[in-house]
Amino acid sequence: MKHVLITGGAGFIGSHLCERYLEQGCRVTAIDNFVTGRPENVAHLKGEKAFRLVEHDVSTPFTPSMEKEFGKVDVVMHFACPASPIDFERIPLEIMKVDSYGTFHTLEVARANKARFVIASTSEIYGDPLVHPQTEDYWGNVNTTGKRSCYDETKRFSEASATVYRNKWGVNTGIVRIFNTYGPRMRLDDGRVVPNFCGQALRGQPITVYGTGQQTRSFCFVDDLVEGIMRLTASDCNDPVNIGNPDEYTMLEFAKVVLKAVPGTKSEIVYKPLLHHDDPKQRKPDITRARKVLNGWEPKVSLAEGLGRTLEYFRTKL
Amino acid sequence: MKHVLITGGAGFIGSHLCERYLEQGCRVTAIDNFVTGRPENVAHLKGEKAFRLVEHDVSTPFTPSMEKEFGKVDVVMHFACPASPIDFERIPLEIMKVDSYGTFHTLEVARANKARFVIASTSEIYGDPLVHPQTEDYWGNVNTTGKRSCYDETKRFSEASATVYRNKWGVNTGIVRIFNTYGPRMRLDDGRVVPNFCGQALRGQPITVYGTGQQTRSFCFVDDLVEGIMRLTASDCNDPVNIGNPDEYTMLEFAKVVLKAVPGTKSEIVYKPLLHHDDPKQRKPDITRARKVLNGWEPKVSLAEGLGRTLEYFRTKL
Repeated sequence: MKHVLITGGAGFIGSHLCERYLEQGCRVTAIDNFVTGRPENVAHLKGEKAFRLVEHDVSTPFTPSMEKEFGKVDVVMHFACPASPIDFERIPLEIMKVDSYGTFHTLEVARANKARFVIASTSEIYGDPLVHPQTEDYWGNVNTTGKRSCYDETKRFSEASATVYRNKWGVNTGIVRIFNTYGPRMRLDDGRVVPNFCGQALRGQPITVYGTGQQTRSFCFVDDLVEGIMRLTASDCNDPVNIGNPDEYTMLEFAKVVLKAVPGTKSEIVYKPLLHHDDPKQRKPDITRARKVLNGWEPKVSLAEGLGRTLEYFRTKL
Repeated sequence: MKHVLITGGAGFIGSHLCERYLEQGCRVTAIDNFVTGRPENVAHLKGEKAFRLVEHDVSTPFTPSMEKEFGKVDVVMHFACPASPIDFERIPLEIMKVDSYGTFHTLEVARANKARFVIASTSEIYGDPLVHPQTEDYWGNVNTTGKRSCYDETKRFSEASATVYRNKWGVNTGIVRIFNTYGPRMRLDDGRVVPNFCGQALRGQPITVYGTGQQTRSFCFVDDLVEGIMRLTASDCNDPVNIGNPDEYTMLEFAKVVLKAVPGTKSEIVYKPLLHHDDPKQRKPDITRARKVLNGWEPKVSLAEGLGRTLEYFRTKL
């Protein structure tokens, strides 16, 4: 029975990974300190014999007794990191530690177990990209001393950490660069555009578009992302791989899609000044490499369908 | 009596800082774990009452008894980091830890003491720059998963760490982006071009130019650098500041200057293939900001003079 250890296992993406690996017949250990992850995200898995939830801050080393309890680990997935811009202001040091200290701690588990290691990187490592769409060999445009640097630079650092462990100790590392993702178990209050617009539309409040609304994002439904991550994990690919949906929308277009998906809403679009001047103006993955190395993987879920399933979830959280 | 705490105090640059602050009448605590720093660099300071040398790895937290012994600290300078490409292959994890863990530990000392904090950043954060010469508002071109990323990304991370402590806790942080520097107390075997060429010329061995020798560097004599750093430390400037010498030489030109500085050497120039494909092709600081915020600071020592003083030092180390 393959044993998968997932940090951030009670988070938005981590909890979906737990679920899918359990369905595949794996033993799953989820680790979370519940800073942004929530026990309710994995509450439905608690009865499963192959599932274990451990409350632990991975910025702190694993104790020998914890490692003993883990037993043999075949796959280590480091997905523990607050990822929303409101977290960047609220808990920047926690973000920097979980993807520096925490990355080293999880890499050590992978090294000791000769396990496959996969780290959740992000499209944010491209910063405000000067190459569009973004290919994996683009080195990015990130401000080291800006409002987003606690997150962007830490994710870049974590990629460099994985690279050191691969070059120096032969750890079989994978790097997934996750583009904007949405779906059930996102936090309604996490400040990102999908929960923002959905919450506003469901509550009949004004939909706030920042700037002119011409900045673009590409939204991937979580099921598509998780399928891509699992294929990457199963592969021996060591190069970074973009996983995301290349369908690009301006924020204004997206606001209109959300309004349409909530029939009868009283919401109207309002414009506000841009919050962060380092906000990327456009973001769209080139998924040529993913298609190639992940057996033809590509997103399957349309925005309309994914948004419907996400709104269903958000309705229960209002 | 102002108390200056300098990590990497027995290193190339750190030891010069110790010397100069002692000359200014400060109390100086130098911290070093002697991974690349050397006790002999500060041996001549050991008799001074205001000087203290502490053997400690700053990747490890300071103990309460250490902090008690430090007493009140007015300035914290984090200059502990192996900085040569041979170190990038030899001790990449030590590099990554000293400028992540070590940066947090030293920032905490600054925070607790309400001290001025200055971190040694580097022109390497610009990577293989697409903007030339490099101004501080250029965000760089660094490969997150390359041979140099353990150093480049860690220095970027350390700038982001300083930014978080400034924004979140009001620590008075300074960031000095150090361009290629040379002078006495460089390690003759550190693999960088100045000691390489000087050692080869002094030994009458072939001078190895990599690639076509058309890649450029700008060399600053250590006395000029240290003067700039001390002015930055004395200021309240929080923005990154380039300190370096804008006089740009191709590696081939530089090889010829070195040959000329060692009369009678039997060395001849030989060409070898480029070692690292991420090696920056050109590097030259724009020092407009330094001139402005550091009271007209600019390099004073010519390459011929600086090289003479450096060769004098290297002769004693052959």
